Amino acid sequence: MLNLGLIGAGRIGRLHAAHLARQIPRARLVAVADVVEEAARGCAAEYGVPCAVTAYRALLDDPDIQAVVVCSATDTHAQIIEEAARAGKHVFCEKPIDLTLARIDAALAAVARAGTKLQVGFNRRFDASYRRLRQAVDQGEIGRPWRLHLISRDPAPPPLAYIQVSGGLFLDMAIHDFDMARFLIDSDIDEVFSTAGVLVDEAIGRLGDVDTAVTVLKFSNGAIGTIDNSRSAVYGYDQRAEILGSGGMISTANAFPNSATLSDSRSVHRDLPLNFFMERYTQSYLMEMTAFVDAVLDDTPTLVTGHDGRAAVVLGLAALQSYRENRPVRIGPSF
Amino acid sequence: MLNLGLIGAGRIGRLHAAHLARQIPRARLVAVADVVEEAARGCAAEYGVPCAVTAYRALLDDPDIQAVVVCSATDTHAQIIEEAARAGKHVFCEKPIDLTLARIDAALAAVARAGTKLQVGFNRRFDASYRRLRQAVDQGEIGRPWRLHLISRDPAPPPLAYIQVSGGLFLDMAIHDFDMARFLIDSDIDEVFSTAGVLVDEAIGRLGDVDTAVTVLKFSNGAIGTIDNSRSAVYGYDQRAEILGSGGMISTANAFPNSATLSDSRSVHRDLPLNFFMERYTQSYLMEMTAFVDAVLDDTPTLVTGHDGRAAVVLGLAALQSYRENRPVRIGPSF
Amino acid sequence: MLNLGLIGAGRIGRLHAAHLARQIPRARLVAVADVVEEAARGCAAEYGVPCAVTAYRALLDDPDIQAVVVCSATDTHAQIIEEAARAGKHVFCEKPIDLTLARIDAALAAVARAGTKLQVGFNRRFDASYRRLRQAVDQGEIGRPWRLHLISRDPAPPPLAYIQVSGGLFLDMAIHDFDMARFLIDSDIDEVFSTAGVLVDEAIGRLGDVDTAVTVLKFSNGAIGTIDNSRSAVYGYDQRAEILGSGGMISTANAFPNSATLSDSRSVHRDLPLNFFMERYTQSYLMEMTAFVDAVLDDTPTLVTGHDGRAAVVLGLAALQSYRENRPVRIGPSF
Amino acid sequence: MLNLGLIGAGRIGRLHAAHLARQIPRARLVAVADVVEEAARGCAAEYGVPCAVTAYRALLDDPDIQAVVVCSATDTHAQIIEEAARAGKHVFCEKPIDLTLARIDAALAAVARAGTKLQVGFNRRFDASYRRLRQAVDQGEIGRPWRLHLISRDPAPPPLAYIQVSGGLFLDMAIHDFDMARFLIDSDIDEVFSTAGVLVDEAIGRLGDVDTAVTVLKFSNGAIGTIDNSRSAVYGYDQRAEILGSGGMISTANAFPNSATLSDSRSVHRDLPLNFFMERYTQSYLMEMTAFVDAVLDDTPTLVTGHDGRAAVVLGLAALQSYRENRPVRIGPSF
Repeated sequence: MLNLGLIGAGRIGRLHAAHLARQIPRARLVAVADVVEEAARGCAAEYGVPCAVTAYRALLDDPDIQAVVVCSATDTHAQIIEEAARAGKHVFCEKPIDLTLARIDAALAAVARAGTKLQVGFNRRFDASYRRLRQAVDQGEIGRPWRLHLISRDPAPPPLAYIQVSGGLFLDMAIHDFDMARFLIDSDIDEVFSTAGVLVDEAIGRLGDVDTAVTVLKFSNGAIGTIDNSRSAVYGYDQRAEILGSGGMISTANAFPNSATLSDSRSVHRDLPLNFFMERYTQSYLMEMTAFVDAVLDDTPTLVTGHDGRAAVVLGLAALQSYRENRPVRIGPSF
Repeated sequence: MLNLGLIGAGRIGRLHAAHLARQIPRARLVAVADVVEEAARGCAAEYGVPCAVTAYRALLDDPDIQAVVVCSATDTHAQIIEEAARAGKHVFCEKPIDLTLARIDAALAAVARAGTKLQVGFNRRFDASYRRLRQAVDQGEIGRPWRLHLISRDPAPPPLAYIQVSGGLFLDMAIHDFDMARFLIDSDIDEVFSTAGVLVDEAIGRLGDVDTAVTVLKFSNGAIGTIDNSRSAVYGYDQRAEILGSGGMISTANAFPNSATLSDSRSVHRDLPLNFFMERYTQSYLMEMTAFVDAVLDDTPTLVTGHDGRAAVVLGLAALQSYRENRPVRIGPSF
Repeated sequence: MLNLGLIGAGRIGRLHAAHLARQIPRARLVAVADVVEEAARGCAAEYGVPCAVTAYRALLDDPDIQAVVVCSATDTHAQIIEEAARAGKHVFCEKPIDLTLARIDAALAAVARAGTKLQVGFNRRFDASYRRLRQAVDQGEIGRPWRLHLISRDPAPPPLAYIQVSGGLFLDMAIHDFDMARFLIDSDIDEVFSTAGVLVDEAIGRLGDVDTAVTVLKFSNGAIGTIDNSRSAVYGYDQRAEILGSGGMISTANAFPNSATLSDSRSVHRDLPLNFFMERYTQSYLMEMTAFVDAVLDDTPTLVTGHDGRAAVVLGLAALQSYRENRPVRIGPSF
Repeated sequence: MLNLGLIGAGRIGRLHAAHLARQIPRARLVAVADVVEEAARGCAAEYGVPCAVTAYRALLDDPDIQAVVVCSATDTHAQIIEEAARAGKHVFCEKPIDLTLARIDAALAAVARAGTKLQVGFNRRFDASYRRLRQAVDQGEIGRPWRLHLISRDPAPPPLAYIQVSGGLFLDMAIHDFDMARFLIDSDIDEVFSTAGVLVDEAIGRLGDVDTAVTVLKFSNGAIGTIDNSRSAVYGYDQRAEILGSGGMISTANAFPNSATLSDSRSVHRDLPLNFFMERYTQSYLMEMTAFVDAVLDDTPTLVTGHDGRAAVVLGLAALQSYRENRPVRIGPSF
C-alpha cells in the first residue's frame, strides 16, 4: 500500500482524490493540502481523507506519506517538486512542470539527486485510443511513420482570467500535443514552425494570446508532424490523431456518450461528442495514477518522466518563438 | 453487336434504353414499342432509336432484332415472353414474370422449348455491396451462414392506384428480397412465416394490402432468414443486409449522395441516403443489362434465370398465405 | 447510507460488490453470504466487507441490513425474495426471478404484502445507448414506433454444464431481449412466434436446447418486433437495437475498446468489439445498482419492477412453446 | 449541340472522349488529334469519332469545331490555348496551364482578346463531397471558416520518368490541392510555408523532387490551411478535406467500392478505398465536361477560370520556393 498526500484540491485535484480514494486498491490518500482551507476540508470530507491542512509542507514532513500528487498552481510546481525530492517523497505533478527551463532544470536536478520518482501528468498517453496508435507504431503495423496529424480543439475558450496566467495557447493547451507527438512517433523533434491567429475571440488577442494555431514539426527520423489547435469547437471536445506510415495509416475518432444514430426526414445524426476533458479522459486519469502508484510500489520507471515534462515545454517555447518571428525554429542539442 | 427492341417505355424502360443506347458498347437499341404512341416516340427520340411503334409484335416479327427487353405492365410479361420465345427472341423481363404460377410455368416452358435465353430483372444481384456479401459466403469469409437479415424499406408508399394493381407488398415489393435471400444464402427455402400490419396509411389497408411486414425464412441448409419491409422510411430508401455465419458477420450500409459529415452545436449529421431505387441502384441496372447482352452474345447462361423469377413468386405467394392464415407455410417440392 | 448484504459471491455477485464497496457513495456493503465459504471470505476480503457467512438467513436476520442483493443460483431467487420480504428487506435480484410463474407470483405477492422494494437485474435498461433509444421513443424523435429489431449474440456458448441448468436459450439468454423489447416500445406484447435451430454446436442440441433463434413479437400498439439470438459470434459480443417509426429510425452500434482504425495494404480495419457483458455493460451494472440504492433511500419506485421480471419470463415461456409447436402463441390476459 | 475536337488521346484524353461521345447529350466529339497516329486512330475508333489526325492545327482550322479539349503534354498547353483562342475556339485545358507564369499570362491574354471561353481541368471542384463542403461554407452551415485541412495522397508514386518531367510534387500533385483550398475557402492566400522530405523512395530525391510535403496557407480572411501530400498510401487513394468554422466543422471521407463491413475473429474490416483518381473521380470528370459544354452553349462563365488555373501555379511556385528556402513566402499583389 502506498500512502499519498494531495497538494491542491481544485478540479483536477479532486479528480485524482476520487481515484486514489476509491478506485486504486494499492493507494491510500491520507492527507490533503490546499491554501484555501475550505477546499482542503471539503475534499477530505468527500473522499474520507483523515487529514486536511493549508500548508503543503506538513505533508512533506509527514513520515507516513511516501508520495505527493501536485495539483497546485503552475508557478508552485517546480518549488514543490524540489522540496518534495529533498524530503524523499515521490512526486506526481500536473503539467506543466514550469514555464521556464531554468526552474524545470533545478527541479529535475533535485529529483535526480534524491533518487525519487517523478511522473508528469500527461494523461493522454494512457488513453486507450492513443495507446493503440503507439502500439501500431511499435509493432510495425503501419511501417515507418512518415506523417503525424494531431487535432486538439477545446469546446470553448477558458475564462480570460485563466488565459492571462496560463502561459498562452502554446504552453497551456498545445503542450499536451507536443508531448503526444513525441510519444506517438517516439523520436526527437529538430525544428518547429508555428502560425497562429485570433479568430475566435478578439479579447484573447488583446491579452497577447492567440486562439487558433497550426504547428509543423520536423522529427529527427524524417517524419513531419502537424498540430491543429483551436480554443473553440462548438460541437465539443475534438481530440483526434492520425499517423501515416510506409505500411499503412491509423487514426482515431472522437468519443461519444452513446452509439445511437438517428435518421429522420432532415438528416442522419448522432449526439455530440463528449464535451470536455473530464468526460473524455476520465479513464486515462485513473490509469495514469494507477501507473504512478505501481511505479513507486514496484520500483519501476515512471511512464512519463521529468525529461518528457521538460521536452514539451521546450517545444512550447520554440513554437511561441516561431509564431512571433514567423520562421522555423531549430531545437538545440540541449533539448 | 446485339440488336435489341424495348417493349414498354415507362420509367424503367427509359432507364434501360439510356443504358442500351449509350453505355453498353455491344448493344444497339433499334426499336421501341409502347401502347402509348407518344411514349414510344419520345423514348426513341431521346435515345436516337430509329423505330418507334405501338404494337410489340412488330418487334417480334423483325428479323434484325435478336432480343427484347420487356418493361410493359406485369400482366403482359408472361404472354410476351411466350410469344418472344416462339419468335426465337431472347428476353430480358422485368420482375415479376407474373403473379400466377400457371402462367409463369407456361412462359418458362415456351422458353425451354425455344432454347432462347431469359433473364429476370432482379437488378440488386448486380449491386456491388450485395455482390460483396455473396462473395463472402462463396469464399468462406464468414464460414457457414446461419442468419440472414434483410432490410428493404421504401421512402414513401406508391400511389394507391399502383398498390391496387401491384399484387400487394409481398409480391410487388418483397419479391426483390425473396430473390436476394436465395441469392445470398444460395440455398432453397423450406418454410415461410409472415406477419404484417397497416401502420403507415390506413388507405392501404382499405385496399386489402399491408404496408409493414416481417417474414421469417427457414433455409434447407438450416439458416434462418428475416426480412423487414416497410412502405415508408422518412429518411429515404433503406436497403441493407447482414449475414452471420460460423466464421464471422458481414453487413452493408446505405448509400449516400456525398461523404460529408457536419458537426455543429446540435449534432453530428450527414445528408440523407439516396432517396430511391433509381439513384441507389443506377449502377446495378447498367450491370444487369450488360450481363444480359454478354450472355446472349457469348452464349453463356443468364445470371438470373426463369427459375429464379418463379421461385421469388412462390415465396411471395407463400408469405401472403402465411400472413393471412397466421401460421408457417411449407414450400412444397415443386418449388 | 444504505447497509446492504450480498447473497451469492460468484462472478456477477463480485461485480456488484465492487460497485457497492467503491463506487456508490450512499451504499455500504456490510455482509457477504455464499454457500461456498471460501467464496464469501474471498469476496469480503477483496472489498473490505466486515462479515462473511455461508447462510444467507444470517443477513435477513441482521437488523442493520436494510437490503440484499441476490446473486445466488436462479432456483433460489424466489425463495430468498419471499424470505427477505417477510424480514422487511428490500431486494435487488438478478434475472430471472424464477423459471415457473407460480413461484414468481408467490414471491411477488410476498413483496406486495411486505411493502418492500424489489428491483430485477435487467441492467441493459441502464446502458446509455439503449436509454437513448427509449428517450427517442418517449420524445417522439422517431414518431410512432413501427418496427423493433434486437440483435443479441454471445461471443461463444457457455459451458454445456451451464446450459443444462440455464432454462435454455429463450429463458436464459433471450430474456434480456424480451425485457428490452418491452422497455423500448413501452407496450404490451400480444403474440410471439419463435423459430430456432442448432447451428453452432450439436452438443447443445443433444441437451434439448437451441443455439440460434429468431422471435417475432406483435405489440399491442401494432408495432412488430424481431429478436435475433445466437450463442456464437466469433467477433465478440454483438448487442444492437434498431427502431423504425413514422418519423424516423434510430439504431445503436457495438462498443469498442478504442476508436483506432487502421488502413493497410489489405483492408481498413479496427479491433474487435468488447468481448462480453462484463466489459460491454460495466457502466450499466453500476448505474442499476446506484438506482436501486437511490430508490430505497429516497423511497421512489424501482426502475425495473417485479412485474417487469415476470413479464420477461412469460415471454420466454411463450417463445419456447411457439418454437416447440411451430405456431404463433398468444399471450393471455394474465400477462 | 456543341462540336468538339480532342487534342491528346492519352489516358485522360480517352476518359474525356468517352464522356463526350456517350454521356453528354449536347456534345458531339467530331475529331481527335494525337502526335501518335495510332493513339488518335484507336481513340476515334473506340468512341465512333469520324476524324483522326496527328496535327492539332487541323482541328483549329476546322470551322465545324467550336471547342477543343486539350489533354496533350503540359508544355504544349499554353501554346495550344493561344492558337485556339486566335482561331476562335473555346478551350477546356487539363491542369496545369503551364509551369511558368509568363507563358500562362500570354495564353490568358490571348483568350481575353479573343473573348473565347477557357475552363481548366480542376475536376475535384465537381466532386459531390467537395461541393458539399463548399455549400456548407456558402450557406453558413459552419459559420466563418477558420481552419482547412486537405489530405491528398496517391496510392503509389508515378514512374520516375514521369516525375522527371512533372514539375515536381508541388506543381504536379499539390496543384489540385492549392485550387481546392481556394475553392473551399473562397478567399485569396497571402502566405505559404512548405516543408517536405524524401521518405517514400530515395530515387525521387535523386531527381531533385520530394515525395512527402506539408504546406501551411494563410488566407486573406484570417483562416489557416494545411495540406498533407504524399506520393504513397498503401491503402489506396486518400482524398479528404475538413473545415472548422465558428459554427461547426465539416469533413469528408474516402470513397469505397462497396459498403460491406466484415467482422471475423481477428478484426472488423472493409475493402480498401477506391484505388486512384480514375475510379474516385469518375463522376466529377463527367460533370466538369458537362459544365464546360453547358457554359459554351449557354454562354455562361466557366466554373474554373484561367485565373483559377494561374493562381494554383502561383501557389505551387511559392510552395516550392518556401520549401527550398525553409521560410514562409508572401504571395505578391500580382497573384
